[in-house]
Amino acid sequence: MTSVFDWLDTRADERRRAGLARQLRPRRHDADHLDLAGNDYLGLSKDKRVTGAAAAAALRWGAGSTGSRLVTGTLELHTELEHELAAFCGAQAALVFSSGFTANLGVLTALSGKGSAIVTDAYLHASLIDGCRLSRADVAVMPHGDVAAITHALKTRRSERALVVTDSVFSVDGDLVALRDLHAVCRAHNAALVVDDAHGLGVRGEGGRGAVAEAGLIGEPDVVTTVTLSKSLGAQGGAVLGPRRVIKHLVDNARSFIFDTGLSPSSTAAALTALHILKDEPGLPERVLTVAQTLAMRLKEAGLKVSAPDAAVVSVMAPTAEAAATWAEDCRAAGVWVGCFRPPSVPDGVSRLRLTARANLTDAEIDHATEVITRHAPRGAS
Amino acid sequence: MTSVFDWLDTRADERRRAGLARQLRPRRHDADHLDLAGNDYLGLSKDKRVTGAAAAAALRWGAGSTGSRLVTGTLELHTELEHELAAFCGAQAALVFSSGFTANLGVLTALSGKGSAIVTDAYLHASLIDGCRLSRADVAVMPHGDVAAITHALKTRRSERALVVTDSVFSVDGDLVALRDLHAVCRAHNAALVVDDAHGLGVRGEGGRGAVAEAGLIGEPDVVTTVTLSKSLGAQGGAVLGPRRVIKHLVDNARSFIFDTGLSPSSTAAALTALHILKDEPGLPERVLTVAQTLAMRLKEAGLKVSAPDAAVVSVMAPTAEAAATWAEDCRAAGVWVGCFRPPSVPDGVSRLRLTARANLTDAEIDHATEVITRHAPRGAS
Repeated sequence: MTSVFDWLDTRADERRRAGLARQLRPRRHDADHLDLAGNDYLGLSKDKRVTGAAAAAALRWGAGSTGSRLVTGTLELHTELEHELAAFCGAQAALVFSSGFTANLGVLTALSGKGSAIVTDAYLHASLIDGCRLSRADVAVMPHGDVAAITHALKTRRSERALVVTDSVFSVDGDLVALRDLHAVCRAHNAALVVDDAHGLGVRGEGGRGAVAEAGLIGEPDVVTTVTLSKSLGAQGGAVLGPRRVIKHLVDNARSFIFDTGLSPSSTAAALTALHILKDEPGLPERVLTVAQTLAMRLKEAGLKVSAPDAAVVSVMAPTAEAAATWAEDCRAAGVWVGCFRPPSVPDGVSRLRLTARANLTDAEIDHATEVITRHAPRGAS
Repeated sequence: MTSVFDWLDTRADERRRAGLARQLRPRRHDADHLDLAGNDYLGLSKDKRVTGAAAAAALRWGAGSTGSRLVTGTLELHTELEHELAAFCGAQAALVFSSGFTANLGVLTALSGKGSAIVTDAYLHASLIDGCRLSRADVAVMPHGDVAAITHALKTRRSERALVVTDSVFSVDGDLVALRDLHAVCRAHNAALVVDDAHGLGVRGEGGRGAVAEAGLIGEPDVVTTVTLSKSLGAQGGAVLGPRRVIKHLVDNARSFIFDTGLSPSSTAAALTALHILKDEPGLPERVLTVAQTLAMRLKEAGLKVSAPDAAVVSVMAPTAEAAATWAEDCRAAGVWVGCFRPPSVPDGVSRLRLTARANLTDAEIDHATEVITRHAPRGAS
């Protein structure tokens, strides 16, 4: 009788006609596909030491943290992970959130607000964009990678307080931002720099300390870094790294921290153990980069248009959104899972396959992936 | 040298002077306090069946889901939980998010937008408030529990599309909203009803099916319900229950679903097993309500000002924010953990102790808690 949601059907039809309807594809625990789509960059999500730690923590601490981090939801496990993560990367302090998404919301809303300015790169991750929207700040979005435009925006801003917000490694093409330049601009114009290092941690920098550490900025008093625990660390959750006073301010002000349940014991313990492995095996990040660069080189040699990977992400351009979807489907049917990014998830409107390197991909798997992806390439991809 | 974050120290001083600075209190895994502060309403977070399922899932599926639900992050486990949760509560379909916070953001942003209206109760949970802010809709906030005001706002709205947004059980005082009245108003004025049943699932309704099911609304075509997996189900995460077309729309449009990593295998399995226990032991919800009502009655008999609990939350009024903090500290020192809500977390500005009932609290524990809370009551509390 009621029709309040009829408009949803209209929207669904539009997406279907545009070939943009999305579908959930549940995977089995014993699926034997070759995964070039997930973000388990170091292959630690299924590492027995990591899964063992996750299992042991559930048995010891319980399945959930039972409350907000401010009430009953802070475990000694969280504090341990925060200390070790901050020390490893070189930041004064850290704070663990239940996801990278909520970490970004928390940082941007708590560190800005009405009467302050935010200047961003146009290719920002969705969670940072939503953080900007929620912040009530005066937000100025600059073209991708345009430091001069960011400088101009900072110079001409009306408010005293300002944040420059960027990803370190952009999630679509895996390209690295000019962090040192951005920081110099921030310093010159009295702004703070907020960097999402989700794709940098475990991949860039000495021993995987991340792109912000690699740029020598992780300990700076005007830099705040966010990371995820769900990519290189193979678990779930996010964290903020920065000056102690920033972390304290988040505890008191970040709504997505205060009004959310703390990260589960098993995810916290898994991330902590993955961090230990990363410390013990500093060759892992190098291996991810080698795999990514090898994949990119091989696909380029096969005539495809491929991004030059600065981290684990390798982007392969497709002529159309439809061709990208068919290409990804064909690869999947051949046992190779690849990501497929189409509008509106791509800021430049160009559809592509999105491959992710993993430290534990073998040379034979790289060969096989290259062969399958090349074989199914659509007309116009080369 | 740099001073971009000096303002944080000023804010911290203000909070300190107002007695409102917050502190994280890490707990040990073997802490033996009496917990009246967490949201583990059914006591399932440490239940061996639940923690065993969480552990087994980590070993079988890995520590993380490795990606967005749309890429590699959907496991058969998620689908299983979604089917069982929808069937149990009586909704057409369900969708699991990594937290209740992101579930609320996802629903409100995807189901509204510029040119649509949202009418809310003033005591909304922070995640719903942030969802409203993010939605870009025309948001009207009505006094707490005022159905007539909501009706008026719906009648006088300018936009065709409208959502009425409410908690089922309000998190501060544990009072139940008049859901059937609200729904009738929505139906009469062509609006959809969005209900956060975080504190209702596992506590209200037949066998703990929640407050929306109890009101006979869970299967209605114009009602969308959000729940958490971190309270009665003892795990982590959130879920949306509603008409199939709403769930499909969220998969395609909810940014906090699309751009977030899927819920970890261990949390998903823990929630699923907790749901099985809830089905097998339909007396659990009744026991929580009995414990809450007993606690409230006993504290009232002792002369304190206590809310009449409609669910697991029992609120005890304090004369000032400082008195509330000292009271909670004294209880904690005596081994009884209680929550303490002060401005700005209380919508009416009244500070209070916030107690939560648990199905596995013994009568002796209720006696002990009553004695400790009463003994430490500040002057002016009775």
